[in-house]
Amino acid sequence: MKDRGDLAGGPICPVPLVHDERIVLGHGSGGRLTADLIARVFRPQLANPSLAAAEDSAVLPVAALAGAGELALTTDTYVVRPLFFPGGDIGRLAVCGTVNDLAMVGAEPMWLTAGFLLEEGFPIADLERIVASLRDAAAEAGVTVVAGDTKVAERGKVDGVYINTAGVGRISPGRAARAAQIRPGDAILLSGTIGDHGIAVLAARGDLAFRTEIRSDVAPLAGLVAAMLATGAPVHALRDPTRGGVAATLNELAAQSATAMILQESSLPVQPAVASACEMLGFDPLHVANEGKLLACVPEASAERVLAAMRAHPLGRNACRIGRVAAEPVARVLLETGIGGVRIIDVPAGELLPRIC
Amino acid sequence: MKDRGDLAGGPICPVPLVHDERIVLGHGSGGRLTADLIARVFRPQLANPSLAAAEDSAVLPVAALAGAGELALTTDTYVVRPLFFPGGDIGRLAVCGTVNDLAMVGAEPMWLTAGFLLEEGFPIADLERIVASLRDAAAEAGVTVVAGDTKVAERGKVDGVYINTAGVGRISPGRAARAAQIRPGDAILLSGTIGDHGIAVLAARGDLAFRTEIRSDVAPLAGLVAAMLATGAPVHALRDPTRGGVAATLNELAAQSATAMILQESSLPVQPAVASACEMLGFDPLHVANEGKLLACVPEASAERVLAAMRAHPLGRNACRIGRVAAEPVARVLLETGIGGVRIIDVPAGELLPRIC
Repeated sequence: MKDRGDLAGGPICPVPLVHDERIVLGHGSGGRLTADLIARVFRPQLANPSLAAAEDSAVLPVAALAGAGELALTTDTYVVRPLFFPGGDIGRLAVCGTVNDLAMVGAEPMWLTAGFLLEEGFPIADLERIVASLRDAAAEAGVTVVAGDTKVAERGKVDGVYINTAGVGRISPGRAARAAQIRPGDAILLSGTIGDHGIAVLAARGDLAFRTEIRSDVAPLAGLVAAMLATGAPVHALRDPTRGGVAATLNELAAQSATAMILQESSLPVQPAVASACEMLGFDPLHVANEGKLLACVPEASAERVLAAMRAHPLGRNACRIGRVAAEPVARVLLETGIGGVRIIDVPAGELLPRIC
Repeated sequence: MKDRGDLAGGPICPVPLVHDERIVLGHGSGGRLTADLIARVFRPQLANPSLAAAEDSAVLPVAALAGAGELALTTDTYVVRPLFFPGGDIGRLAVCGTVNDLAMVGAEPMWLTAGFLLEEGFPIADLERIVASLRDAAAEAGVTVVAGDTKVAERGKVDGVYINTAGVGRISPGRAARAAQIRPGDAILLSGTIGDHGIAVLAARGDLAFRTEIRSDVAPLAGLVAAMLATGAPVHALRDPTRGGVAATLNELAAQSATAMILQESSLPVQPAVASACEMLGFDPLHVANEGKLLACVPEASAERVLAAMRAHPLGRNACRIGRVAAEPVARVLLETGIGGVRIIDVPAGELLPRIC
């Protein structure tokens, strides 16, 4: 009997149907080629009991949620171009982005699903790099990829590979963060420099006329959030400023909480190289995507305590206070400039940076 | 202040930034256009407290899992072409496929996430049809879409729209179905006619030289599974024969349980129009995808009782016994033909029917 890469958890001896170097349509058709691809690329890298069981769904113990009042569920699809960029790749991004969305509601990320959509002709060696990266990021984030899917579309119908991840996390009682909890007087904290990811991706596209050492900040933030929550201080809201940057995120928070966000321009942490790149491109760093930063609204009385906890964490070394929440103008974000003026920070309309994550 | 489609759950008065008839890249950039699209297309159709809260993750009560010993988690990406076909569309498929994967491990489906990947230029009216279809399917399946994501890729980098759904379900104690539970002597049951979905999709592609009335069988099977489990009979394993058809699925089950599956050709339920289409195309109906059927392995002593429950359910009217599980040949699927012969039913290699789901 031909061993298709035994799905039952027995000895794995993949015998590829053909010596594929590139993805073919058949890899997505649910037959032997699909089984071969899973056995050759996915299972070795992501081995765990759920994937080994190869049932139609992963089956997980509810007991793992014991003590949690709530669970968090989220999804994101990753279409970043290019697939590999300084500081990361689509595999790392697919884990960190979804883990961070769980962390932003105060959840401890636990399980991920990963759906791959591959282009016919995609080099399998590149897929192996991406899956290895995804595996490493999952280990770093402390999550397990318990379920997955692989589909293939014809050449030209996918740009290399897209990945969707969904994530489940557990929220301890009293730990949930919500925009509705934001109050006038809260301090607005930012965990580090802004614009790194967007500029790194643009550089990797060759869209910059100059060289830069900027690396994406893509990183899993659950540990940083845990350190903040461990202070015992109330953390009203958490958001990671991804697409649309800090500007989009603070506008959403302001609208959702019916408050105003007042920022100090002199407080905004921007790496000089990022500031230069933004100036040359005509971008506002506040509009540029981040993938390893968070914004937090915390009561003023707790701000210094939370900031200290952030700065003690590797991902929060450059944490700083960037502004305050006010009662009005409702749903507005304002920037107090260095020269004493006030600028309205609007949501970017949307055309700036496609496929940044 | 420009109302971007208030995310806080207040009155929704979407004022589109432009009167879009088609998706533009900016709809995926996380700014105002993204908010407009969500407010105009997604939120009206899928309104529920989790989506209205618009946090980075849906927050759900663990109490909803009370009484369950296990939870199920799964994902699938839907790339069916064409998007609309007799009997359904990608929206309905994206709900039913994932709901069915949960049902196949004995889970009661509860929550879904939905990640949309849209092509620049995609007609928004078509998106509205698909989201409506997804909403209707979710209601029919008794699940709530609690989280979502929308991304856009340039014209030519997506074929219209792809959808990923992930699903969470709860499994009552003793209700889990697993391939490892299959035993020699078990009856193999099938809930209805095979090959309908694959042929309907091929017909919609215009790939058939003849007209056909075949409609996809795409349907949510959790209710049928519940009826089967409600008999109290042990159901050893459940699988829905999607990509690769009954042949791929039974081969997987045989390998995972180290048993043999022996089918009776005369018992296989195939609509005459499907049989004709398969014959003209050179396909074996056992290799053709289904999206509203299930295979079950149950102890022989319970087979009639479970069959009766299936036939009493709208989605199991044509349920029948198609074979039996044997001890050997291990990991093989055999077909006893009408003329007394025995044919090996192998896993399809994989090239037959791309983008069938």
